[in-house]
Amino acid sequence: MKKLINSADSVVADALAGMAAAHPGELEVDLDNRLVYRATPKEQGKVAIISGGGSGHEPLHGGFVGTGMLDAACAGEVFTSPVPDQIVAATTAVDRGAGVLHIVKNYTGDVMNFEMAAEIVDMESGIQVATVVTNDDVAVEDSLYTAGRRGVGVTVLVEKIAGAAAEEGQSLEEVARIAAAVNDAGRSMGMALTSCTVPANGKPSFDLPEEEMEIGIGIHGEPGRHREPIAPASQIAARLVEPILAELPAGDGRGVIALLNGMGGTPLLELYLMYDEVARLLADAGVVVERRLVGNYITSLDMAGCSLTLVRADDEMLRLWDAPVSTPGLRWGI
Amino acid sequence: MKKLINSADSVVADALAGMAAAHPGELEVDLDNRLVYRATPKEQGKVAIISGGGSGHEPLHGGFVGTGMLDAACAGEVFTSPVPDQIVAATTAVDRGAGVLHIVKNYTGDVMNFEMAAEIVDMESGIQVATVVTNDDVAVEDSLYTAGRRGVGVTVLVEKIAGAAAEEGQSLEEVARIAAAVNDAGRSMGMALTSCTVPANGKPSFDLPEEEMEIGIGIHGEPGRHREPIAPASQIAARLVEPILAELPAGDGRGVIALLNGMGGTPLLELYLMYDEVARLLADAGVVVERRLVGNYITSLDMAGCSLTLVRADDEMLRLWDAPVSTPGLRWGI
Repeated sequence: MKKLINSADSVVADALAGMAAAHPGELEVDLDNRLVYRATPKEQGKVAIISGGGSGHEPLHGGFVGTGMLDAACAGEVFTSPVPDQIVAATTAVDRGAGVLHIVKNYTGDVMNFEMAAEIVDMESGIQVATVVTNDDVAVEDSLYTAGRRGVGVTVLVEKIAGAAAEEGQSLEEVARIAAAVNDAGRSMGMALTSCTVPANGKPSFDLPEEEMEIGIGIHGEPGRHREPIAPASQIAARLVEPILAELPAGDGRGVIALLNGMGGTPLLELYLMYDEVARLLADAGVVVERRLVGNYITSLDMAGCSLTLVRADDEMLRLWDAPVSTPGLRWGI
Repeated sequence: MKKLINSADSVVADALAGMAAAHPGELEVDLDNRLVYRATPKEQGKVAIISGGGSGHEPLHGGFVGTGMLDAACAGEVFTSPVPDQIVAATTAVDRGAGVLHIVKNYTGDVMNFEMAAEIVDMESGIQVATVVTNDDVAVEDSLYTAGRRGVGVTVLVEKIAGAAAEEGQSLEEVARIAAAVNDAGRSMGMALTSCTVPANGKPSFDLPEEEMEIGIGIHGEPGRHREPIAPASQIAARLVEPILAELPAGDGRGVIALLNGMGGTPLLELYLMYDEVARLLADAGVVVERRLVGNYITSLDMAGCSLTLVRADDEMLRLWDAPVSTPGLRWGI
């Protein structure tokens, strides 16, 4: 297994220690609970936001902790949901008296554990919790690990936009409404050129022959729609854009925020090249791209491939998108 | 070949078009000359800075064009120097009457073509040009493509720090002095778990057996110091830290700026984990890390692996490091 690790058992703890070492004064890590916090907590009276999920998708979620985005992130084992105790600890720690929004990707384990944590928090402390479950992946209706669509790339945009709403002092109800609106307006589709290797397994999660790619892949390597021979980037872009546009909410003259995301093992050179194809297809379809982000934001360990997320964005979403953000993974305006 | 490309011939042009599409209002691209420019040019009277080199190292150099860093970048074919005409075009376009600094990685082709371009610029327009050649790689004394040490990771830090000096209005002589000082104070060492595949070749540049890694690798996959069985991250970190510290300029109580850089195919999870090991070794050696950067900054296509760069930094370098920068690849304070 070709990985920069000490042992499969300690990957998550070692990486969290590295995040703390890499971002002193910005992030703090609770190694017992596997949590990433802001070094400087948010002011009293503002809504706090947490997210979390299996590790292996960095910079999601810990890399999005900071001003204008998350207050804390709960790191599960690689590709494994965090447990309720972690989520309870994070929720309790970040609450500033205005309640806490949980942003949860739609995977059965995550949804169950965040629900359980919300119940425990309610019983133990009465902190108000609202939950938004993201489910933007158009590839499959139900999947290996989900009932309903999987939650993937839109999660990054929900965290950014809801984070900005919370930072400017909106209520828990409002922040949750905006988060849900972004999710409802978002659709994603991914593809893989290669599998990924979970450290504890020591071998690729699936086999993908040298001349084939998988369309509609999930972020854990779970099966997508189909396999086909590797095609030029222009055709691959069409495989992502078309199914998304088929299910994207109608425009009413509104444009989109686009995220062209790398899966972890794809060089930036190829992501830029893919974005050019995506931008061309969107222009041909009459879709105006209002904002865009190209890079590695929600990854699948060392998988080579990419995903596209489009959010049909209203003025409020664009304004909150543009608001200052200062996290290791997204930073502008500060 | 598992790549997101249209054809091996058009990779660089297609990716540059994608950069322009991904960063409207921030970057502009001259596709004829394969140049990346700032969309809003620097004010008259300030020193301009350009760099460039073979493509395949993104975000270097085009991703570092913007306020507080480069004014333009010249993109060669993959792993191939830009030609003098490109460099002349960039130099002429960015000059604001105060001269232009060329930042060049020490590879024979790059050094020769930047020299030739500087001579042409001098004859044709009389624009003042100063040149700093980076040569920080301690792995090998001469290499496949260089006389003397190779120029690698320190280039990112030279571009940032010299860029800040130019932005605050320092003279060409001063900006060149600072750039040279950063290079002189910097040392790097890299390692690879896998080879990389140049699109035009269609197969890995070298073979690296499943259980082996290469220590001292260059950013084009050129040979390093030796191969050995893959070791735990803690031991790999020692293979990077020890040879760097052996050649790093003495401290005089000064700390370092550290760059733990991914080669393109290594997930952020592993880079953070590696940084934890590096930070521990530096602490053990009594080296204070004043600033640090962890991520993909100077890559080698899809190579899995990492490199470490340390710069023994004085107060001026730290001040210029902290200055605002706004580029696709580095952004803070703005």
